[in-house]
Amino acid sequence: MKIESVDFFYLSMPDVRTVGDGSQDALLVRIGAGGLVGWGECEAAPLVSIASWNCPMSHSACRPVSDSVLGQTMDDPDDVRRINALVRTNSFDLLQADHTLSGIDAALWDLLGKKLGQPVYRLLGYPRAYPKTAYASLLFGDTSEETLKKAQSARQAGYRAVKFGWGPFGRDSVDDDARQLQAAREGLGDDVLLLIDAGTVWGDDVQSARKRLPGLLDCRAGWLEEPFVSGALESYRQLAAEAGELRLAGGEGCHNFHQAKNMIDYAGLGYIQIDAGRIGGITVAKQVADYARTKAVQFVNHTFTTRLALSASVQPYAGIQSDDLCEYPFEPSALARDLCGAAIQPDADGRIHLPEAPGLGVEPTIEVIRKYLVNAEIRVGTRYVYRTPKI
Amino acid sequence: MKIESVDFFYLSMPDVRTVGDGSQDALLVRIGAGGLVGWGECEAAPLVSIASWNCPMSHSACRPVSDSVLGQTMDDPDDVRRINALVRTNSFDLLQADHTLSGIDAALWDLLGKKLGQPVYRLLGYPRAYPKTAYASLLFGDTSEETLKKAQSARQAGYRAVKFGWGPFGRDSVDDDARQLQAAREGLGDDVLLLIDAGTVWGDDVQSARKRLPGLLDCRAGWLEEPFVSGALESYRQLAAEAGELRLAGGEGCHNFHQAKNMIDYAGLGYIQIDAGRIGGITVAKQVADYARTKAVQFVNHTFTTRLALSASVQPYAGIQSDDLCEYPFEPSALARDLCGAAIQPDADGRIHLPEAPGLGVEPTIEVIRKYLVNAEIRVGTRYVYRTPKI
Repeated sequence: MKIESVDFFYLSMPDVRTVGDGSQDALLVRIGAGGLVGWGECEAAPLVSIASWNCPMSHSACRPVSDSVLGQTMDDPDDVRRINALVRTNSFDLLQADHTLSGIDAALWDLLGKKLGQPVYRLLGYPRAYPKTAYASLLFGDTSEETLKKAQSARQAGYRAVKFGWGPFGRDSVDDDARQLQAAREGLGDDVLLLIDAGTVWGDDVQSARKRLPGLLDCRAGWLEEPFVSGALESYRQLAAEAGELRLAGGEGCHNFHQAKNMIDYAGLGYIQIDAGRIGGITVAKQVADYARTKAVQFVNHTFTTRLALSASVQPYAGIQSDDLCEYPFEPSALARDLCGAAIQPDADGRIHLPEAPGLGVEPTIEVIRKYLVNAEIRVGTRYVYRTPKI
Repeated sequence: MKIESVDFFYLSMPDVRTVGDGSQDALLVRIGAGGLVGWGECEAAPLVSIASWNCPMSHSACRPVSDSVLGQTMDDPDDVRRINALVRTNSFDLLQADHTLSGIDAALWDLLGKKLGQPVYRLLGYPRAYPKTAYASLLFGDTSEETLKKAQSARQAGYRAVKFGWGPFGRDSVDDDARQLQAAREGLGDDVLLLIDAGTVWGDDVQSARKRLPGLLDCRAGWLEEPFVSGALESYRQLAAEAGELRLAGGEGCHNFHQAKNMIDYAGLGYIQIDAGRIGGITVAKQVADYARTKAVQFVNHTFTTRLALSASVQPYAGIQSDDLCEYPFEPSALARDLCGAAIQPDADGRIHLPEAPGLGVEPTIEVIRKYLVNAEIRVGTRYVYRTPKI
């Protein structure tokens, strides 16, 4: 079959707040081919990704993403890989293209799964999908009292692992941070895995990060995520060497395979966290999962938006039993919560299971798309580069 | 003074062709503060960078670039650095923001130089700007005969160094490539420095690159640029170890400091090539130049567009005498050629000199902006995110 249509739907909560909640908007991609429809999602900055789809060409290595997708043949997994590589070649000076490609790639896998009657993980070569322990991904409270309450409610909801991040952590004093960490541990009790996300707050400053190590070891954090910006390899490696039992996690900012490989090779990570909505889709995330396994680094998804993005982010390591953790947005916006109905809920043991339906096994609800759809228009000269499609 | 206005001007040749000539369009940034005006330029994909300036916020770390720029105080170099860092913090999930920031940062330095009556290089701490040997940056001909003629005419134009890149190189057979290399050397004669740019054609495939080493050594190439994609550290390092006298060059794709640092630390480079229009502006390019010096790696600008971008790309290493090479677009489009009049031409020895006028010392011509200005409009709901400003 040939790729006949690619449509972008920019969804947003009516009021986007200045907080670290990445589920306040979403960019959906719908691809049509051979009478079938596939859905994917790009992570972050919908309008900018939309602009990259159909912008004028700057030169031969800075073409709009559409040049490498529309009209392409799509019959088997190698076609998805070929289209993915073609976008990189033709758009490699177009920075945002990597994020745009990510949603397109997921939609292509969804489409192919529907065509072949297989869930995506099986097309990736996994005989089965293992359940993953969902960690509830939460923002630190503004105070340690608030964090305590959040931790208690996550425990009561049955989660076996909880991550706290962002908010005031790392910005206040070392003592304040220690109180936040203690509150999180107290609220969760002794038997729930506690993970900590510093949200790159220390830039590449090892000294600031080092001061928090005692507090992190005291609360028995399972990992320290993103003490530094993605790619600050030397800072990561220095901190990892001093962190004892505490393992480092990072990688969500990677937007191509080599960035992730470099984090695995040089950053001393225990966990590589990949967002399929950023790195170039399921295709590239699977490459990273394969490589991480050869280096004894655990692969974990990064995702903070809808169940569609969640399914796409888990497929790449679904069949690796030992990679048993999964980020699960615990407090998504109404838009992210409602988009795909009740898909992919944790079971009584706090584990999630990928759907066995063909493709990603998760369908966006048209009414919810309509409810949150943003009307946008991009024009260059007399040509409309983008207009919100009808749905 | 406070930053009062930031305007983007998208210029394009009427007909953009599918060739590796990055000068076919341009994105200019004009910043107004305290009655003064500064100019900068972003590299690649104008429409997409424009969209990132004023797009709706996605979350606290994915804000439009404008949030961190408009209304900021700007009185000394530390203000430029502070604004630069603020954009990274507030927009770090907005991939394209790094390219957008690059033009803004250059315009801020230009503005500050005009305010303080100093050329930018002096604000960066250099007592003087050393002349640089301009290498003419040329595309390989479709045939070796065409390459021969191009090389002869570059030699006749007085260049002491010439780079050939892109075109068929690396895509045809090893023998075809060897013929291209021989033609380039023959046309230049024995005493002109010949540089070769593979334009990432081998991805991360060391084997394909290795086969070209004899031909590259035979023609006494001064460097092999971008055999692999930016960030493919292991491939670079392997090839560097086998390349003998031939040094590797790379880094133009870097869009932040750490990517460049990693290329210096791990890729075995002899030359780090930084485009101030991509890496986050003059501020970040200067950081890279400083770091490269501590590692005995030579800094070289990357630029392929206007004289405005050229000036911005040379300021960061203007005062480092031993970093004596400079990329100089030899066959720019009419738009890139005419934008800043006759600014920055090579002297009789094929060397260029930065202007001593305040700021970047290069002013775009309003008539040329008007001639090539693209009319564009971006609307979200009822709000105009962008409309081509009047000039």
